[in-house]
Amino acid sequence: MSPSRLETFADGVFAIAATLLILTVDGAVGGEGIGLGGELRHAWPAYVGYVVSFVTIGIMWLNHHTVMSLVERVDRRFLLANLGLLMCIAFVPFPTRLMAEHIRGAGAESAALAYGFTLTATALFFNTVWFYASRGGRLLRADCDPRAVAGITRTYLPGPLIYLGATLVAFASPTASALLYLAIAALYVVESSVFGGRETAGD
Amino acid sequence: MSPSRLETFADGVFAIAATLLILTVDGAVGGEGIGLGGELRHAWPAYVGYVVSFVTIGIMWLNHHTVMSLVERVDRRFLLANLGLLMCIAFVPFPTRLMAEHIRGAGAESAALAYGFTLTATALFFNTVWFYASRGGRLLRADCDPRAVAGITRTYLPGPLIYLGATLVAFASPTASALLYLAIAALYVVESSVFGGRETAGD
Amino acid sequence: MSPSRLETFADGVFAIAATLLILTVDGAVGGEGIGLGGELRHAWPAYVGYVVSFVTIGIMWLNHHTVMSLVERVDRRFLLANLGLLMCIAFVPFPTRLMAEHIRGAGAESAALAYGFTLTATALFFNTVWFYASRGGRLLRADCDPRAVAGITRTYLPGPLIYLGATLVAFASPTASALLYLAIAALYVVESSVFGGRETAGD
Amino acid sequence: MSPSRLETFADGVFAIAATLLILTVDGAVGGEGIGLGGELRHAWPAYVGYVVSFVTIGIMWLNHHTVMSLVERVDRRFLLANLGLLMCIAFVPFPTRLMAEHIRGAGAESAALAYGFTLTATALFFNTVWFYASRGGRLLRADCDPRAVAGITRTYLPGPLIYLGATLVAFASPTASALLYLAIAALYVVESSVFGGRETAGD
Repeated sequence: MSPSRLETFADGVFAIAATLLILTVDGAVGGEGIGLGGELRHAWPAYVGYVVSFVTIGIMWLNHHTVMSLVERVDRRFLLANLGLLMCIAFVPFPTRLMAEHIRGAGAESAALAYGFTLTATALFFNTVWFYASRGGRLLRADCDPRAVAGITRTYLPGPLIYLGATLVAFASPTASALLYLAIAALYVVESSVFGGRETAGD
Repeated sequence: MSPSRLETFADGVFAIAATLLILTVDGAVGGEGIGLGGELRHAWPAYVGYVVSFVTIGIMWLNHHTVMSLVERVDRRFLLANLGLLMCIAFVPFPTRLMAEHIRGAGAESAALAYGFTLTATALFFNTVWFYASRGGRLLRADCDPRAVAGITRTYLPGPLIYLGATLVAFASPTASALLYLAIAALYVVESSVFGGRETAGD
Repeated sequence: MSPSRLETFADGVFAIAATLLILTVDGAVGGEGIGLGGELRHAWPAYVGYVVSFVTIGIMWLNHHTVMSLVERVDRRFLLANLGLLMCIAFVPFPTRLMAEHIRGAGAESAALAYGFTLTATALFFNTVWFYASRGGRLLRADCDPRAVAGITRTYLPGPLIYLGATLVAFASPTASALLYLAIAALYVVESSVFGGRETAGD
Repeated sequence: MSPSRLETFADGVFAIAATLLILTVDGAVGGEGIGLGGELRHAWPAYVGYVVSFVTIGIMWLNHHTVMSLVERVDRRFLLANLGLLMCIAFVPFPTRLMAEHIRGAGAESAALAYGFTLTATALFFNTVWFYASRGGRLLRADCDPRAVAGITRTYLPGPLIYLGATLVAFASPTASALLYLAIAALYVVESSVFGGRETAGD
């Protein structure tokens, strides 16, 4: 299999997972008996969850392409690691719905833990994908810029710890945990907006 | 990332968002207890909403490709602007369902506002995408026809205002607002049918 | 826009519409209170509907590619006709569910009419797409085999009439109508199986 | 039609079917009235089903690409066989939900049978696709490695029997049957992890 076939499949899963997030919003409105206007206002956590998860999946899609732009060949272990990553990405709409429904109620802690553990697992698989490909340059193109490789390593490595930290905060305060998830997504956007005015690598 | 990878992802989101619209129709029929024939006739706003939103998403897909056909390279800010656009596109099935369910009831105003603000935001992101790419020719191909560039600018610029106007009409009459959304989509179709018998640009 | 971009988008809609058919089956099982085994047996119209609609969408996907393999360039009118076609394709899961739920009950006639009119409209758009492209060779490749072009015309032309005929039978007998839809899909499969052992055109 | 167009469509169905599996998990949580934490723990069969089905679909996607990498040309019969295969793949989310909901209840046998027969049918279509393409080298590239071809034949041939065996176990013990489905998926992963450190064929 060529790297580009993997990208097509991965693009499909990223795009579908992101688009299915709207079902979260859809499920949050209806049958409250408080009038549509009230319901739409009451459903605000669903909109926040939609935006945070959409941006998170979108950023992960960007990062996946950055990795794939450096990859020259794939083997079955690498494909399996990618399957694991995509399995986590496709899972994201579920804890997003939990957050939207429960962050204001008794289930807030469980919802925040579910969301955080999903993203921690995603970040772990991301590291698996990257380190399997880059360890000793196993699957990378020979002409990769070593600084680009080191830069990715430096960026991905703390990912699982950051998400795990934000997750564990949920035991103390699910709301704080939710704000941290939002802050992480916002950070990615701000960072890309401020420093992103260059052509992307791996064109 | 190459522009064509962005197009693949964007195509996926456009196609999925359009196809998910059928869930709106699906949800509009069932459990009324008036016989299937009566239910199917009673659900006519869902069919109108399906067609209007499908055509609107389809036209935006066409326009997105017109833009991408002029774009030579992408950077992270441009990708972020596109993510924002796709986030709005993927949101469209939700207000479409609201319109289908509530345009004949007490929630008509809220539904028409939700639909209109979604399309206004979409048009805003469309302009962000276009002006970021075209300002000073930042991301465009060197050989772009300047008239094509000016033509797109002229076409996109009033988009947010037109949709915002149609949205605000909902405070006076949600039905009038709905008819305006329909008229805008119909206008696109008529305009393309009458003037569209030429090969598309950016082939 | 190049023909291949249109194909990517169309492929997406075809694939998603076909895959969403499983929601029909999913909705047909649950809450009957007759034990899962009984429910699964009772839901057989949903399986038939799934297969018939999947095969119908699949055959239309094949035919769409046959057309696109002859098309050299696209214009906006052609794109609009394709949007209309895809709008019908994406609609198919809805009447499929109606058939699965109502073919044994009081709503059989309405369900069979909804299914038939959807496929009639789809066949009409297919003809629109084809005749717009082929009239005077407008969008076709210069080196198209005229017999291939005439063959497609001969095959597509009766499509709307065949489906309309099967639809109108529903006024007399919805079951007969349903059997005709099944027979049309089966005919496509048999015809392709018997005569299909040649390399496809437009490779 | 070129083999690569078939791959694009197939990739779409594989990706969507895999991503729709999350609806299984989504449906398993809600309305139990035991608190979200309890519900999330109680829903563990849904997570197992999600992982097993996602991995199974993913492995089938890998195998489909291995086949397509050897295929040089397609005909309509081959396309039909592929449609049948994709029809089974897109069906997988349904029995996955049945397993998740019923494996601990009275419907366990029916659920395990539904899951097993779906995978048996999938394996049968996989063999149909492969033997139609490879019999006498009908659709294969002239330069295919005969050992690769023989290796695929040897691997695919027992597939339907293995799944049928695991299915029939459900008459004695649905739980044992479920464990066998899990073991088969795990076996694929372990086998690919241990022996998969080589570049994939058909690059």
